[in-house]
Amino acid sequence: MHIQSMISSHPHVQGNTNDALIRAVQEACDCAAVCRICADACLGETMVADLVQCIRLNLDCADVCAAAGAVGARRTGSNEAVIKSMLEVCADTCATCAAECDKHAGMHEHCRLCAEACRRCEDACREAAGTITPSQH
Amino acid sequence: MHIQSMISSHPHVQGNTNDALIRAVQEACDCAAVCRICADACLGETMVADLVQCIRLNLDCADVCAAAGAVGARRTGSNEAVIKSMLEVCADTCATCAAECDKHAGMHEHCRLCAEACRRCEDACREAAGTITPSQH
Amino acid sequence: MHIQSMISSHPHVQGNTNDALIRAVQEACDCAAVCRICADACLGETMVADLVQCIRLNLDCADVCAAAGAVGARRTGSNEAVIKSMLEVCADTCATCAAECDKHAGMHEHCRLCAEACRRCEDACREAAGTITPSQH
Amino acid sequence: MHIQSMISSHPHVQGNTNDALIRAVQEACDCAAVCRICADACLGETMVADLVQCIRLNLDCADVCAAAGAVGARRTGSNEAVIKSMLEVCADTCATCAAECDKHAGMHEHCRLCAEACRRCEDACREAAGTITPSQH
Repeated sequence: MHIQSMISSHPHVQGNTNDALIRAVQEACDCAAVCRICADACLGETMVADLVQCIRLNLDCADVCAAAGAVGARRTGSNEAVIKSMLEVCADTCATCAAECDKHAGMHEHCRLCAEACRRCEDACREAAGTITPSQH
Repeated sequence: MHIQSMISSHPHVQGNTNDALIRAVQEACDCAAVCRICADACLGETMVADLVQCIRLNLDCADVCAAAGAVGARRTGSNEAVIKSMLEVCADTCATCAAECDKHAGMHEHCRLCAEACRRCEDACREAAGTITPSQH
Repeated sequence: MHIQSMISSHPHVQGNTNDALIRAVQEACDCAAVCRICADACLGETMVADLVQCIRLNLDCADVCAAAGAVGARRTGSNEAVIKSMLEVCADTCATCAAECDKHAGMHEHCRLCAEACRRCEDACREAAGTITPSQH
Repeated sequence: MHIQSMISSHPHVQGNTNDALIRAVQEACDCAAVCRICADACLGETMVADLVQCIRLNLDCADVCAAAGAVGARRTGSNEAVIKSMLEVCADTCATCAAECDKHAGMHEHCRLCAEACRRCEDACREAAGTITPSQH
């Protein structure tokens, strides 16, 4: 909600927002936070040795989501090619992380919630990427 | 909301959450995103030369909030001294950024909204810092 | 140098390092720092209004390089598809930033140095991406 | 080296650099990368369950170092109070991480190297913090 109103007040936007992109930025910020917490919660489980791959994919996903959210929120200039690529990589990274978290979702609620956040972010990034047609340079 | 449910599912928390800390983590994540967008919106204003200090404080605030949110969300281990210090630095950084954004709030809606986000984050961080008593080592 | 010795000591590497990937990680970390400083130096120029696009591309490049460096440095697990994609996006982002910085290189030494750092990072990322063949899942 | 020449070319610096601060920025960037790699290397050890606290402190240290490096590198404006506070928190965080890594240094070379990087960063941050006297506002 804050991200929506902030981007709407940007001088280059003038109320003419790309709502799919705003949703992707919001989901990427949320997903980054959720993935970081899932990594830490996995570290706190007694069966941590079985969750090593999950932790690593959580951390990768957090880093990629944070970058996608930051790049997607910048409206000054016209770096559409980079925004589109980052959204696509972010969607793929979220899909990989969700698939791993799903394996542990029955046992660990944090993995179940993290898989959900990753799927929401994946969907939002794919939809937003579809709205962007990089101009030829 | 996602951060709340994620932290509640952490094995070291077991439903016994520090709600002030969760609120601070949430506000810090929001404020980081809002400050980054305000920096970019300021860059898009024709009077950008008058907003240089605002942009720089926005970027500082985004970096500090992101770190405070990340550190505050980790519940494994017991790094209370670092969490408390980061919350205090984050509150001070938010106060500085809010004071600068306030100067431009009458002219730029994004600065008005950013000052609000910074003040919410400052309050949440100060309250959360007050709940943490680092143990002696 | 530190990154080289750290990755060499990783239990999954055992001295059998991917030197192209290590170089890319190192260059991405350097380039992220250089781009952030170039953005701030541009903000300090009296002609800041002419450097808005440069600042924005600097910040995008810093965010993407930081994520590429973080993802590329993780050797636990086998997230090759994400590493390769991030290296490719990072190379493209660096190329875009270098092209913009080049326009100002005659007037601003920080832009000249930043363009060089971006080109080094672009080359290192492309070479490293070429060494990675994601396995089929 | 790149950070040194970049900051020297900043319009607000004009060759009159704070070398202690530049060294702290450089060490913080290095230490952030080293801590992230140490966290991942710890995740790759068969005895990962004994390294959970080390991983968590590595991740905290990486986040705080990254923010301290970013804030310390911005020379536009005059946010000395925040720079000084971040350098002090960074030094404390590095000290905590180094103490934990030391416990595992005999067994894991990555922990030995990480403790060294944390100590270098701690020293550089303390020295740089000592050179900064925030102005009264």
